[in-house]
Amino acid sequence: MRTTVGIVGGGPAGLLLARLLHQAGVDCVVLESRDRAYVEQRQRAGILEQGTVDVLRSCGAGERMDREGLVHDGIELHFDGRRHRVDFPALTGGRSVMVYAQTEVVKDLIALQSVEGPPLLFEARVDAVEGADTDSPVIRFTHSGREQTLHCDYVVGCDGFHGVARHAIPEGVRRTFERVYPYSWLGILADVAPSNDELIYAHSERGFALLSMRSPTVSRLYLQVGNDTDPHAWSDERIWDELDARFALKGGGWKLERGPITSKSVTPMRSFVAEPMRYGRVLLAGDAAHIVPPTGAKGLNLAVADVVVLARAFAHLHTTGSTELLDAYSDTCLRRVWRAEHFSYFMTTTLHPDPAQSPFDTRLQIAQLDRIASSRAAATELAENYTGLPIG
Amino acid sequence: MRTTVGIVGGGPAGLLLARLLHQAGVDCVVLESRDRAYVEQRQRAGILEQGTVDVLRSCGAGERMDREGLVHDGIELHFDGRRHRVDFPALTGGRSVMVYAQTEVVKDLIALQSVEGPPLLFEARVDAVEGADTDSPVIRFTHSGREQTLHCDYVVGCDGFHGVARHAIPEGVRRTFERVYPYSWLGILADVAPSNDELIYAHSERGFALLSMRSPTVSRLYLQVGNDTDPHAWSDERIWDELDARFALKGGGWKLERGPITSKSVTPMRSFVAEPMRYGRVLLAGDAAHIVPPTGAKGLNLAVADVVVLARAFAHLHTTGSTELLDAYSDTCLRRVWRAEHFSYFMTTTLHPDPAQSPFDTRLQIAQLDRIASSRAAATELAENYTGLPIG
Repeated sequence: MRTTVGIVGGGPAGLLLARLLHQAGVDCVVLESRDRAYVEQRQRAGILEQGTVDVLRSCGAGERMDREGLVHDGIELHFDGRRHRVDFPALTGGRSVMVYAQTEVVKDLIALQSVEGPPLLFEARVDAVEGADTDSPVIRFTHSGREQTLHCDYVVGCDGFHGVARHAIPEGVRRTFERVYPYSWLGILADVAPSNDELIYAHSERGFALLSMRSPTVSRLYLQVGNDTDPHAWSDERIWDELDARFALKGGGWKLERGPITSKSVTPMRSFVAEPMRYGRVLLAGDAAHIVPPTGAKGLNLAVADVVVLARAFAHLHTTGSTELLDAYSDTCLRRVWRAEHFSYFMTTTLHPDPAQSPFDTRLQIAQLDRIASSRAAATELAENYTGLPIG
Repeated sequence: MRTTVGIVGGGPAGLLLARLLHQAGVDCVVLESRDRAYVEQRQRAGILEQGTVDVLRSCGAGERMDREGLVHDGIELHFDGRRHRVDFPALTGGRSVMVYAQTEVVKDLIALQSVEGPPLLFEARVDAVEGADTDSPVIRFTHSGREQTLHCDYVVGCDGFHGVARHAIPEGVRRTFERVYPYSWLGILADVAPSNDELIYAHSERGFALLSMRSPTVSRLYLQVGNDTDPHAWSDERIWDELDARFALKGGGWKLERGPITSKSVTPMRSFVAEPMRYGRVLLAGDAAHIVPPTGAKGLNLAVADVVVLARAFAHLHTTGSTELLDAYSDTCLRRVWRAEHFSYFMTTTLHPDPAQSPFDTRLQIAQLDRIASSRAAATELAENYTGLPIG
């Protein structure tokens, strides 16, 4: 087997890249280790930046998103028993975000690809990516019980943090940066209409809480918990009581509606960056190269930005024969990656009390939130980062 | 002896408060433990916010400042081998700062007070402030070898971090918040014209460095060093070489001029807040209530804001008999204090590599500085805080 661009991983990064390359007339193949049903129900992020929405629309994958997604013009902050709304369009010249689950984006992209191509192989387990520093790297994979080799001009690793593609970059070249946070998120899905039209990020001395939603009838809620928490050690009643306590306002006036909890899971919080994002003819995109804690809703959006830059670079090579944009890929993306890493760190450490933090640190968090609530500059800085910076 | 407002401490906070009270017709006395020569040559901060400049002018203490002070319309940042200027008036609607040493402000206020009053006693060592919860608190002090008592309607503690006034607030009432940083500043004065018209804040993996100035012929420079550093362990040549290395730009194009070093000293970095700032008839202002690390140039300016709020409150009591503003004093000031504490922490932790920090943390610092250099919102947030927020 032979292709121009071999894509390892059929999550949103790999699928969108394949879509964009297909539209640019660049030949590619996607290899995904899981089966289609698994990939289509994997629960992940749910906030699309303005730029992500624009890309999905322009590549023809935005129809259901525009029908079912919820446009959000702001978020609410609860802190010190007070509430404050951050108005995105007013602060950013009209930008907003879309609540539409990553799993739905993946379904839409798979549906498109299954009709129009390019080839997408499920249950194709990639064992190794080799020959990054040659003119013809290969992907060795197992499919239908047979070991196979895909010969490529370029390989793109979209296979996530635990993927194999990153390891095609030699250890002496690859540099990694990492931070693990001393808390996790206990996330639930509940069959109850969201108690607020927009997301609520709550800072409380008891810990962080987040109200989000999957649809007008399904709430998604999160609680900061200790690492290694067993989600089933938390009864439904304890979860609702703790959410009530963390969202509480001094004057009352807002109530969290309860409903049947249909899912409980715990997500750890990690920051991670691998540099460079390109070595020879192997390139990394999305979680294969960088991880952010979910507080800033940046993970999926960063992956989309990577593949947009990458698709442009391959299209440029295809039409002009020049590798100029491919050569710039790593530097172009890393600047935006570090911006998002910083914003995700900022949101995380401003909103979560670290179990080891001092009362001084708690006061600083409240001072920062109070500043966002009272200063246009500080609120704009949050709104611009949240709705997303320009791609490329 | 008896007065309306007994002021403990003849630094800038106590002297300015006395000036403002005198102008409002409120009787007061200032007790300063040191002699006049010591107070007039004590080296401290040198950056006056726009609001501080306005207050000094309006109370008649601005004449020499306007003649000798240097108006600065921005600062420069050096990071990642690059330089970026933050333009204050363009970002804040015309605000700037004044470089004029605290020690000069003190001289001007003492000169005024020695002519016009109110009474200012040097070498008056305050031993205790008592009776905060009575209608007539007293200051017990020793002057000219005699123990004396000043009976007051109110006592204001402007006696700094190591002063006694704070201890008039009972331990069960007083709550303190504190952070000590794992580095200090080695500061020098050098007889050489400043190598830049404006301050330069330099982030380097070797440590932070700051170029400042006292006058057109005297440079003030600082290096981040370990705590417990002996300034005399640093030779002049080593200091200049290290400054060169930390200010270095990738493309060259800027040179630090050397000159005779006339002073070397080491300053520790601490954040500290005592709450509340008022108990009964004892009130705290300036360093007696809060300390910031010097990176944001906020210490003197916070003290000025405190005494402006306090002088208004006493004037209001004097003319109307109402304690309304006095009752609000602590809450009014603390909101601004915590803002400045946060900004000082932000400037300090963004510009100083912590000896224990990871490469990830260093990249985050550079990402934050890069954001300030490329985003109007982020630059405005810095400029508004640096030039100073409204008082009261």
